[in-house]
Amino acid sequence: MKVAFQGEAGAYSEQAVFNFFGQVGTRPCESFEAVFDAVVSKTCDSALIPIENSLAGSIHQNYDLLLRHNLQIVGEYFLRVQHCLISMPGVKKEDIRKAISHAQALGQCAAYLRSHAIKPEQVYDTAGSVKILKESGAIDVAAIASKRAAELYGMQILEEGIEDNPENYTRFLAIQSESMRPEGEAKTSIVFTLKNVPGSLFKATSVFALRDIDLTKIESRPLQGKPWEYLFYIDFIGAMHEDVTKRALDHLAEYAVMLRVLGSYPRFKR
Amino acid sequence: MKVAFQGEAGAYSEQAVFNFFGQVGTRPCESFEAVFDAVVSKTCDSALIPIENSLAGSIHQNYDLLLRHNLQIVGEYFLRVQHCLISMPGVKKEDIRKAISHAQALGQCAAYLRSHAIKPEQVYDTAGSVKILKESGAIDVAAIASKRAAELYGMQILEEGIEDNPENYTRFLAIQSESMRPEGEAKTSIVFTLKNVPGSLFKATSVFALRDIDLTKIESRPLQGKPWEYLFYIDFIGAMHEDVTKRALDHLAEYAVMLRVLGSYPRFKR
Repeated sequence: MKVAFQGEAGAYSEQAVFNFFGQVGTRPCESFEAVFDAVVSKTCDSALIPIENSLAGSIHQNYDLLLRHNLQIVGEYFLRVQHCLISMPGVKKEDIRKAISHAQALGQCAAYLRSHAIKPEQVYDTAGSVKILKESGAIDVAAIASKRAAELYGMQILEEGIEDNPENYTRFLAIQSESMRPEGEAKTSIVFTLKNVPGSLFKATSVFALRDIDLTKIESRPLQGKPWEYLFYIDFIGAMHEDVTKRALDHLAEYAVMLRVLGSYPRFKR
Repeated sequence: MKVAFQGEAGAYSEQAVFNFFGQVGTRPCESFEAVFDAVVSKTCDSALIPIENSLAGSIHQNYDLLLRHNLQIVGEYFLRVQHCLISMPGVKKEDIRKAISHAQALGQCAAYLRSHAIKPEQVYDTAGSVKILKESGAIDVAAIASKRAAELYGMQILEEGIEDNPENYTRFLAIQSESMRPEGEAKTSIVFTLKNVPGSLFKATSVFALRDIDLTKIESRPLQGKPWEYLFYIDFIGAMHEDVTKRALDHLAEYAVMLRVLGSYPRFKR
């Protein structure tokens, strides 16, 4: 089995792949488009894409890509993001003057870096920052990335868990070509559009509320070519093979202009 | 009167400032944070911030900044974004091999650039790309930016309106310290949180639907420190001085854990 992810070897996404799928083959991809293409072209059996971070919010590009491709969501996984301060072997923490990493990781460690008088500098990727540091051999620079990235490049971890806010989780979705019937408690993800009239979102949410179906997420994205009209993405508790879910979606179809099921999958339990 | 905006002189945001406020003084700011700070510190009377693009979606950072600052939304403006291909004076279009601009502008002209075999290269800002081009003097490079940026730097416009999708609008919000009572048809923007229980979003949207109040936008953002709970931002037709609006928000307050009015302002008419 081979699973595509975005980023370099040692990326948080790769960590999530191993945690979710076990010991599988992985394929690092430069962009999220390339991740989707790897599954569509059957180069990979599955992919794991980040969809939302508990601090930074949704990764909207992946919502747009889910709409553009005919793939199925078959699983979700929540990864606790723990950033490490990584250096060349033998370097001491007090010698570090500069930290390199992806902008989001630097932002999530801003208070830590300030309190240690370490200057942040953006590079394109977290795992990539470890690679850059190793190539440069700089002894006053640290990279901020995952523990796995440090180990992969044979580098030294100066400190673990340097993120300012420990409530830092990323939700990932597993996608593949064929849908799966989830066992146990499940979630379903859908995308739909509504007529641009008063009360339409109220009616759309009523199909769930009237059946005591719990919504876990709502996201709106612009509808291309129709300024200020929206696509709505909703996740809710339930699976497509359950009668109550079918009835709720039949009801929603009465109001929706477009409605597509992106997949039913087991709800992740920590 | 002095108005803050994010970007360099000649930015689309500056164009929007002149269209909305008329001939006022402007203050270019490096970041959105600096724009908000300019109003809070009274260095500027107002600011104009982009909140949403009809193709790319919401500018989430500005939603977060609206929450963090105690400022009032007093107006909205929609700018049609028209990108120009800009060169050194005297250069011919067929000599252009590379185009520099902000990633979003390059993305919005991707088909045009491909069909003209022009290679895109990212820089930090649209108006900044014109400045960079002028300083370099390169004759096989074009910048992609506003007409105003070309004029400001005394550069040549090779072609106007090179964006792939003409339905390209950015919505801006005018913010200041004091609220204003809007005349005529108005919009109101609010932000609130709900209990994490089934049916809560349905109840929240009911307070508008039951009073035939039209929602124009809903946006969700992560609630910091409470993973997978959300802040909701809603824009609707109506003003705070109208009884029906007051009643709807009193009703919403029965369900909301937190509720804040960000401002009532005249609805923009094209």
